Amino acid sequence: MTQGPWLNEAEQRVWRSYLSMRNRLTTHLARQLLRDFGLSPQDYEILVCLSETPGRRMRAVDLGQATRWEKSRLSRQLSRMEQRGLVCREPAPGVRYPEVVLTEQGFATITEAAPAHAAAVRAVFAEALAGEQLDRFAEACAAIENRLDEVEADDSR
Amino acid sequence: MTQGPWLNEAEQRVWRSYLSMRNRLTTHLARQLLRDFGLSPQDYEILVCLSETPGRRMRAVDLGQATRWEKSRLSRQLSRMEQRGLVCREPAPGVRYPEVVLTEQGFATITEAAPAHAAAVRAVFAEALAGEQLDRFAEACAAIENRLDEVEADDSR
Repeated sequence: MTQGPWLNEAEQRVWRSYLSMRNRLTTHLARQLLRDFGLSPQDYEILVCLSETPGRRMRAVDLGQATRWEKSRLSRQLSRMEQRGLVCREPAPGVRYPEVVLTEQGFATITEAAPAHAAAVRAVFAEALAGEQLDRFAEACAAIENRLDEVEADDSR
Repeated sequence: MTQGPWLNEAEQRVWRSYLSMRNRLTTHLARQLLRDFGLSPQDYEILVCLSETPGRRMRAVDLGQATRWEKSRLSRQLSRMEQRGLVCREPAPGVRYPEVVLTEQGFATITEAAPAHAAAVRAVFAEALAGEQLDRFAEACAAIENRLDEVEADDSR
């Protein structure tokens, strides 16, 4: 009996369970960030990247690699954040392209938002997975990423 | 020693592992759907909902509940799909609002796309998680959703 391309019943159930969890978790955390700090998840991700980098500045190309966003998407995102005073673009000595710099306001925003976001992630994610379950979940995520590496290496051959 | 709002090192590692997996898996499947069938993941979700419903038609309000999208987002999405001939809105007898109906073209599209999408999900998700790992993963997803139910019930009190 060949299975064809279809997921069997158990696989289908796990896949739908994952999609449902992913959608609800993403929505829950996004709503909280927007309601309490006026931030989108994308704003938050950029602010975290910059705040964790020495000098709180990065080349756009490195931000692109860190976020894995396409150039045009990143550029639009940074323009919106620049208009709101969260980041600015500054010419850097000896570098052809300007760097993206976290502003004082951007730093104050992430300093305020990060503990609340961490608490929310703990409440609905980390504390939901007891002890060993947390490790098993990380192993599953790593297994999926390894498979993605393999499949994408095949595709680009 | 109180932990404060922050994730400990192990929790932080699992959370980042999940975010990375989620982003890569979503991007991988979205690229394939777009490249091979010109569909966004949102198009795909709507087409699946309609194709699985008797008569291949649903009220917009039921589609909204099935997808958990907000009304304005769903409405814009359906307009775009209507322009491309994938769905249409038809007045329904005895119902105040028109129903969303899968067109012949929409049905042909999902019939072609679904096996390819299922094969991709199997390759990078279901087959990446061996035997018991698949069940453990579903249990973790369910635990997170249960926690979301609790937290959101508290919030709305």
